[in-house]
Amino acid sequence: MSKWVYLFSAGKTEGTREMKNLLGGKGANLAEMTSLGLNVPPGFTVTTEACLDYDKSGKKINEEIKAQVKESLATIEKITQKKFGDQSNPLLFSVRSGARASMPGMMDTVLNLGLNEQTVEGMAKLTGNPRFAWDSYRRFIQMYANVVMGFNTSLLESTLEDLKEHAGVKEDTDLTAEDLKELSQVYKEIILQESGKVFPTDPVEQLWQAIAAVFRSWNNPRAIKYREINEIPHDWGTAVNVQSMVFGNMGDTCATGVCFTRDPSTGVKRFFGEYLVNAQGEDVVAGIRTPGPINTDSKNESNKKMPTLEEIMPAAFKELVDVYTKLEAHYKDMQDIEFTIENNVLFILQTRNGKRTAAAAIKIATDLVIEGILTKDEALMRVKPDDLNQLLHPTLDPDATRNLITNGLPASPGAAAGEIVFTSERATELAGLGHKVLLVRLETSPEDIAGMVAAQGILTARGGMTSHAAVVARGMGKPCVAGCSSAEVSHSKATLTIGGKVYKEGDFLTIDGGTGEVFEGKVPTKNAEISADFAKFMKWADERRTLRVRTNADNPRDSKIALKFGAEGIGLCRTEHMFFEPERIMIVREMIFATSVDARKKALDKLLPFQKKDFLEIFQALDGMPVNIRLLDPPLHEFLPHSTEDQKALANHIGVDLEVIIERGEKLHEFNPMLGHRGCRLGVTYPEIYEMQVRAIIESGLEAQAKGVSVNPEIMIPLIATATELEFLNIKLKTHIEKVMAQSGGKLAYKMGTMIELPRAAITAGEIAPHAEFFSFGTNDLTQTTFGLSRDDAGKFLGEYVSKGILPKDPFVSLDQAGVGFLVEHATREGRKANKKLHVGICGEHGGDPASVHFCHKVGLDYVSCSPFRVPIARLAAAQAAIEQA
Amino acid sequence: MSKWVYLFSAGKTEGTREMKNLLGGKGANLAEMTSLGLNVPPGFTVTTEACLDYDKSGKKINEEIKAQVKESLATIEKITQKKFGDQSNPLLFSVRSGARASMPGMMDTVLNLGLNEQTVEGMAKLTGNPRFAWDSYRRFIQMYANVVMGFNTSLLESTLEDLKEHAGVKEDTDLTAEDLKELSQVYKEIILQESGKVFPTDPVEQLWQAIAAVFRSWNNPRAIKYREINEIPHDWGTAVNVQSMVFGNMGDTCATGVCFTRDPSTGVKRFFGEYLVNAQGEDVVAGIRTPGPINTDSKNESNKKMPTLEEIMPAAFKELVDVYTKLEAHYKDMQDIEFTIENNVLFILQTRNGKRTAAAAIKIATDLVIEGILTKDEALMRVKPDDLNQLLHPTLDPDATRNLITNGLPASPGAAAGEIVFTSERATELAGLGHKVLLVRLETSPEDIAGMVAAQGILTARGGMTSHAAVVARGMGKPCVAGCSSAEVSHSKATLTIGGKVYKEGDFLTIDGGTGEVFEGKVPTKNAEISADFAKFMKWADERRTLRVRTNADNPRDSKIALKFGAEGIGLCRTEHMFFEPERIMIVREMIFATSVDARKKALDKLLPFQKKDFLEIFQALDGMPVNIRLLDPPLHEFLPHSTEDQKALANHIGVDLEVIIERGEKLHEFNPMLGHRGCRLGVTYPEIYEMQVRAIIESGLEAQAKGVSVNPEIMIPLIATATELEFLNIKLKTHIEKVMAQSGGKLAYKMGTMIELPRAAITAGEIAPHAEFFSFGTNDLTQTTFGLSRDDAGKFLGEYVSKGILPKDPFVSLDQAGVGFLVEHATREGRKANKKLHVGICGEHGGDPASVHFCHKVGLDYVSCSPFRVPIARLAAAQAAIEQA
Repeated sequence: MSKWVYLFSAGKTEGTREMKNLLGGKGANLAEMTSLGLNVPPGFTVTTEACLDYDKSGKKINEEIKAQVKESLATIEKITQKKFGDQSNPLLFSVRSGARASMPGMMDTVLNLGLNEQTVEGMAKLTGNPRFAWDSYRRFIQMYANVVMGFNTSLLESTLEDLKEHAGVKEDTDLTAEDLKELSQVYKEIILQESGKVFPTDPVEQLWQAIAAVFRSWNNPRAIKYREINEIPHDWGTAVNVQSMVFGNMGDTCATGVCFTRDPSTGVKRFFGEYLVNAQGEDVVAGIRTPGPINTDSKNESNKKMPTLEEIMPAAFKELVDVYTKLEAHYKDMQDIEFTIENNVLFILQTRNGKRTAAAAIKIATDLVIEGILTKDEALMRVKPDDLNQLLHPTLDPDATRNLITNGLPASPGAAAGEIVFTSERATELAGLGHKVLLVRLETSPEDIAGMVAAQGILTARGGMTSHAAVVARGMGKPCVAGCSSAEVSHSKATLTIGGKVYKEGDFLTIDGGTGEVFEGKVPTKNAEISADFAKFMKWADERRTLRVRTNADNPRDSKIALKFGAEGIGLCRTEHMFFEPERIMIVREMIFATSVDARKKALDKLLPFQKKDFLEIFQALDGMPVNIRLLDPPLHEFLPHSTEDQKALANHIGVDLEVIIERGEKLHEFNPMLGHRGCRLGVTYPEIYEMQVRAIIESGLEAQAKGVSVNPEIMIPLIATATELEFLNIKLKTHIEKVMAQSGGKLAYKMGTMIELPRAAITAGEIAPHAEFFSFGTNDLTQTTFGLSRDDAGKFLGEYVSKGILPKDPFVSLDQAGVGFLVEHATREGRKANKKLHVGICGEHGGDPASVHFCHKVGLDYVSCSPFRVPIARLAAAQAAIEQA
Repeated sequence: MSKWVYLFSAGKTEGTREMKNLLGGKGANLAEMTSLGLNVPPGFTVTTEACLDYDKSGKKINEEIKAQVKESLATIEKITQKKFGDQSNPLLFSVRSGARASMPGMMDTVLNLGLNEQTVEGMAKLTGNPRFAWDSYRRFIQMYANVVMGFNTSLLESTLEDLKEHAGVKEDTDLTAEDLKELSQVYKEIILQESGKVFPTDPVEQLWQAIAAVFRSWNNPRAIKYREINEIPHDWGTAVNVQSMVFGNMGDTCATGVCFTRDPSTGVKRFFGEYLVNAQGEDVVAGIRTPGPINTDSKNESNKKMPTLEEIMPAAFKELVDVYTKLEAHYKDMQDIEFTIENNVLFILQTRNGKRTAAAAIKIATDLVIEGILTKDEALMRVKPDDLNQLLHPTLDPDATRNLITNGLPASPGAAAGEIVFTSERATELAGLGHKVLLVRLETSPEDIAGMVAAQGILTARGGMTSHAAVVARGMGKPCVAGCSSAEVSHSKATLTIGGKVYKEGDFLTIDGGTGEVFEGKVPTKNAEISADFAKFMKWADERRTLRVRTNADNPRDSKIALKFGAEGIGLCRTEHMFFEPERIMIVREMIFATSVDARKKALDKLLPFQKKDFLEIFQALDGMPVNIRLLDPPLHEFLPHSTEDQKALANHIGVDLEVIIERGEKLHEFNPMLGHRGCRLGVTYPEIYEMQVRAIIESGLEAQAKGVSVNPEIMIPLIATATELEFLNIKLKTHIEKVMAQSGGKLAYKMGTMIELPRAAITAGEIAPHAEFFSFGTNDLTQTTFGLSRDDAGKFLGEYVSKGILPKDPFVSLDQAGVGFLVEHATREGRKANKKLHVGICGEHGGDPASVHFCHKVGLDYVSCSPFRVPIARLAAAQAAIEQA
């Protein structure tokens, strides 16, 4: 004889958590909770094999199964001291499907199975609430007719509407017990009329039908479709869970509530929760009655005068305390518990790991280690790296009301409110007067840096997750919503139009850069809080991870922030970001517009002291940690003056006609600047630019060294496509460096290497590696070229791609492992094969994305580099990657 | 005892052509010619091992070698009946180096070794020309001093100048024998004074010194450098060739000349050449005396009255005929032979495969097969595929004088002369009046198509080998020089400035699109000629190749040209090229500026009949051959109106304000359109565009079928990056096609597949292939993204890259095998693994490049597709690839 049915009930539980294949996920879980000694409403699980047998037996439940169900039913009756179909003390059941894998929406639940015209009267007496009893009955009819009988219930619903209209009431809750009783009668008549089937009144008949319906639901079209999409085998079958119902609304010895084993906001270890006497679970949430505090710890302003559960039901409360202690120890995590007390008996309906804030997550995880419940590794796995953003940036006050007007891309986390302005100049001006401003632009360009610094946050209509605005904002740790394509920005009119409403300078908006949301008006925000637990937690992460974490920082200020966040060096210092400061940009333009090598050198000579000063300060801040400096990368025309005013200023500065400036500017125009005359191509055609830059690095390095600072520069050549290109530049630059050192009479150790940011460089890494001491994957550009996708233009259609499911996520945010990842892995492998000592890192924006960090760990990179505010995220993600691999 | 010295002399030749390692290339060749029975001036080769021994022995020629040289010298004296150092009948030698591999410029030749004050008198008597003898002597001193003694000869040269001034003459040839005799004396004195060394008069001493000098030259710096660059091992050593001198100027029984075994212009089999009695080889070339015809066949206007060599030296001539017949049979190719007759004895100085025109190359190769000398395979290998361009396009008259003013990229072959014009409109206008015009532009855009059709050729200042101008011109078979960066084009002033000179409309220029040269004025051109031999030759190529050759053609006209050239289908029909015709462009713009799906569909409905008509005509032209149609690919803003005039016209057309047009145009602007909203991304966001296009394909296909035409369409989706993207569009389009067929009530077989033109698509080809019936590599775009290089912008620096040796060639012209090729190979392998029936081709511009065709054959592609005029080139290259692989 096969065993088709497994009991779950204190002391009589036949299943275990390991029997998922046979009992389904839900059945195994009910068995586990019961085995833990929790007073779960008892019941039984009909196995998945019974489902398969049902199909094989021509859609019949075989007699052996029926016998076992009946036997289990009898046991449950004994345990609960209730009787299935009994008029005075009826046992009722919920019936649910439960497959091996979770298949949401496969079949709805049937509650209160066992109700009929007799048992409903019993319920009415027991609860002293006939209205509740009849409402439960008419709901049961509707649910059963739909789920078990396959009846289209819209007719029932319209009848309910008619009844309400007839009774002159608006809400279901205004109907009387009599109304509902009558309604249940009408329901049954309609069902007979329309389906030709009598609604079953025999509870046992109801049970067989319900079990068979669950079995059949395994092969309903939406379940089959779901399995196809999620690659779940069709021959698994589903189990059926039949569980006795308990009621918290059968009088004053009954109650219902929810509780947390620790504070989900702060993580502090205190047991607290809410309850309602003589109520159902949904009443706690509904907010019609104010719930009471379960204990003194749970008292607050609104409920401090109410009695606690501890006071009025001390035995049940004591049991609840035992339960929560047991549950935390078992699940090793803060629990969110739903309970019901029926006639002073505590039942646990559900327990799960509770939702919590990032601060609480860290507090709980570290406490659980100290309490000896978790290992450090387990604790580290408990916090989602991205959630750390909450700790590092201001957030919207969760209790504040808000008026969402549109959504953009969550380009840089943090919340910010301010008056909107449309130009960098106005941002600086108003911020100088003490205003809090939000800079609103179609897109930002390097010329907007000052305004971005002055603003609380940035909102752009165009651009993707790695657009200029996004990258710079993340670097600054400043909130940014980018690519908000439903927002129309007119620079000429200085207006922002969203959903037909026009916003002007001075109007307040609030953005949440962590979600991409844009709100009207000023939504209150909460400042970031960093705790001692955070430091402890991050120290554990550092001990665990093998991947180093550096930062992308272009100036001493960002470098210092990153060091505070635990960066172990600079992985990318973009020299060109230093070029935009007002006193420098004119010289940069003079250099670009030079028509002879001499004139160009003259301008470069003027830039040299600026670059030296920057590098010196960065070397001093990093004191011995590696500083990876990328030589000039962007196309020169990014630096061109665009406004007539700027063009005139430049014409004056170098003493030529405005026309000449315009003409030369046109000559520098490129169709696809991202694929144009940039990166090392500038180094090849205008060697004097890179020569000035390496001179600045070496001279400032020597100066720092003379001051007793330890200096560790890495010189990075961008946009290499071929080994010969790198070899050519290596020779040129090393020769020049020798010359500079000879002139200075000093010696400075440095490394030279290249960015791998073009598919061709990745493909031919084996040829390139012998000429490089390090590789740094520039995955922003690598993603652009691998996908053929401009990050500045992709905003227009990428959203549609993600929403249509064509792309799982924005490849500029999370590294595309199949495509870009293939190149990273190939280049790392081939590069190391050709050069055993090759040091390999990543400096694209992906360096701060947890999934991408995992990938980098797996591929065996030496380090990742990310914007300062993402350093902690990368540190944790790296630790988790190491733990997962072990 | 080792053998250090090998004789070459009729009947006594000790070496063979296989002994290249020991005798060097030149030595082995001299041995071969002699073994063939040719009367080569006899001599001997000192081996490469002797060179190595010289180094090992402390820079000394060992006695064994010396003994063998002396022995060989005696043999040569016996054979030539002359004596080394003899006053009356002196034997003279040339001494040359000769390594295993050719190393041009390693060491100069020493001629007339053995001359001294005694032997020079003998020479004077023998030639009856004392001036010649003394001139030879003073040249010998200068050469020997330089090459053997390492003497800086500038002092000797200035002495010669002084002497000429003193004698009051301008040319060396005006100096008398006495002058030269005196000069040789002065030379020797200067050498003594300056170097402290006596110039050797003993011929044997001269010989030892010369041999040692050749040995030493193996390790001179420029030879070492040459070996490093060309990866030639340093331990090979060089051989020394010592060859007796013969003289064609020792009287009227002497002569010298050159001859060809076939006509190098036409390839016709006729022996012909020129000669001079009593002259040296260089006299034939110098043009001071008119050479005579060697036979009647060689007579022309200027020499028809002169006696032939056949008439005046019948024996020598008869021998020459024997020689040339033997040489052609031996080398199996047309020979270019240099000969000297000394005292009625014919000597062969050199024979090599003669240079020839493409027409001659084909004629000769086919004739040699018919004559049974070559196999077809050998014949096919004899013609460089690129040379076929000469047969397909007009060329510059080789005899015309020309004034080269600058160089650009050879973007589309053929020569064209015309008045320059600066706009498409003027080109059309003037061409309509019967003028021949050249269209000069900074760069061209699709709006210039009409002007390009009207012009004889196109010259652009910007853009690379795959710029718009280049691609379109090649498609049209029209000459084009692109990216002529030294040319400044001002559209506003309508001027072209080259080298400071300004050219205006109406000025004549001539371009050679095969070389990139630009000439001032009208250089006469020759029309293309296609012969019966060409057809025969190409038929052999077709029989041999396994790679299919298709064409890139966008209209019936180009399709027909390509079919004439042997195309086997269309590999790429760019539907968007059809959009620019005046009556269509307005509708295209209406479609782009539509703000609702309905408005867009309305415009598309108007485009439908145009597309259908085009496709119908192409299907009819191809009748059953595959026609691969690419759905809309370029970014929409390529179609936007740029001039205010066009913008106004559009505003009128769709009934909105000019401002609206300008604003929407700005919204469509992209930073990097090549990486923007284009290709299948348009298909995803505006599905109605692709739906219209597939409707046009299916409906026109059904119409053609109804007319009895066999139709074989392939629908190609461009710019796919992920498998999901293709799957998504496949479902959408196939559903639509089913609908269209149902509406029409017909059935049409079609294939659906994708272009592989992004690195990500190539990398993930294994995922994509199950959703595609074919792959077509779009290697233009694939090169752009793999290199991160915009073809429209690369012109600015790519030239410098190639000239600095950083890139071996323009990767847009010849497929980069290490980078782009890796992706092509990877995608083909992975694609076929995932889909056994996958058909794979290439449709980038590389499809017409012979080296790239070889690569495609090797990788196992099914076909290449190229512009119509390159079809024959691809056919031949494919045949050669098949032959080479076998």
